[in-house]
Amino acid sequence: MRYELYYWPSIQGRGEFVRLALEDAGADYVDVARRPKGMQAMMHLMESRSVKKRPFAPPFLRAGELIIAQTAMILHWLAPRLGLAPKSEAARLWLHQQQLTISDWLVEVHDTHHPIGSGLYYEEQKPQARRRAQDFRENRLPKYMDYFERLERGKTLSYVELSLFQMIEGLRYAFPRAMRALEPEYPRLVALHDRVMERPRLAAYLRSKRRIAFNQQGIFRRYPELDGR
Amino acid sequence: MRYELYYWPSIQGRGEFVRLALEDAGADYVDVARRPKGMQAMMHLMESRSVKKRPFAPPFLRAGELIIAQTAMILHWLAPRLGLAPKSEAARLWLHQQQLTISDWLVEVHDTHHPIGSGLYYEEQKPQARRRAQDFRENRLPKYMDYFERLERGKTLSYVELSLFQMIEGLRYAFPRAMRALEPEYPRLVALHDRVMERPRLAAYLRSKRRIAFNQQGIFRRYPELDGR
Repeated sequence: MRYELYYWPSIQGRGEFVRLALEDAGADYVDVARRPKGMQAMMHLMESRSVKKRPFAPPFLRAGELIIAQTAMILHWLAPRLGLAPKSEAARLWLHQQQLTISDWLVEVHDTHHPIGSGLYYEEQKPQARRRAQDFRENRLPKYMDYFERLERGKTLSYVELSLFQMIEGLRYAFPRAMRALEPEYPRLVALHDRVMERPRLAAYLRSKRRIAFNQQGIFRRYPELDGR
Repeated sequence: MRYELYYWPSIQGRGEFVRLALEDAGADYVDVARRPKGMQAMMHLMESRSVKKRPFAPPFLRAGELIIAQTAMILHWLAPRLGLAPKSEAARLWLHQQQLTISDWLVEVHDTHHPIGSGLYYEEQKPQARRRAQDFRENRLPKYMDYFERLERGKTLSYVELSLFQMIEGLRYAFPRAMRALEPEYPRLVALHDRVMERPRLAAYLRSKRRIAFNQQGIFRRYPELDGR
């Protein structure tokens, strides 16, 4: 099966969580919007009235006739097919529940630089971003880190661990100072991050041009004024 | 099967989306935290290290040995058992995808009154709330309404329609002026709302004491200054 991934071509964003699973599994996939005319194809699927099960927003995945959106749901559907999740329903639900909590976490990361409106520029909401980022660093970030640090993990790696790797990577990019201060309290998450990064296919991907660099248009952005002191 | 629902006892919040499904189906359930010592039981499940698959936050549902959290996932699991979703995987995924989009929408409703920090009081973030609410009313709310207005709906009602009913109810409570101006453009959503409200079991529930009234601690809050003019 050749999968088609649809996501904004210039940022890691939410698409990256799906990309990491596809890459780690060595799956056959096309990153549609990064190809010629790919953006048109993506916008068509989102806007055309002829598409019955239209996604609200990217990322979405096309697998044969099926078009599925919502990052956590894509992974819930895809990962057992990639060998990145068990097939038992209870185990799959537990992974999905964790991934949905990661999605909530990611929204809060985004809102540190866009507390007032996602359609406005960062420069239009800087003082508010500073306050929201402070609340995030001091309250929300440790709450999520505590939660995932203490959870028991299965013996075999799943897509949830790939996503936790990406969260740590992104948080280190966006909040290097805050993360340096926090990380000593989260040895299991740090070890998990390192273990994921050493997986051969993932390591090759991270070195490749397919991995878009973090940048100031993505969800994780480095604004030193949001990183505290 | 007797289901146990765990959610904050004094607000509709996210728990209400699960409650509507349980009530519409006439399911046997206990609203645990609204009973004596129920809050203790809820906090135990969230905080005890002896609970292996600890939820990050309410609502969560206990069904025999299974504890599942995340509103959309609870409904994804529960609704086929209540006759509120088909059993086919493709149909269930499509409903789940819509419900996840409703979850995103609901976060944006919450953030109109809490743009800076969920742990702070509204009074500590009023000017920011005013700007965020304006962006919500003018950009985000119509975007979500457009999306759901235009989607094709199946012949049989599902939990997604119950949730859309709740969104319309809540938005009318929180933004009466904005909704009066918008609703004429969304006749299908308004008709859907009315159809859901007339379902006998749901109508009985809405008149009962089990239905918590909207209030200023919930996700939908009525602050006239956030409703524009």
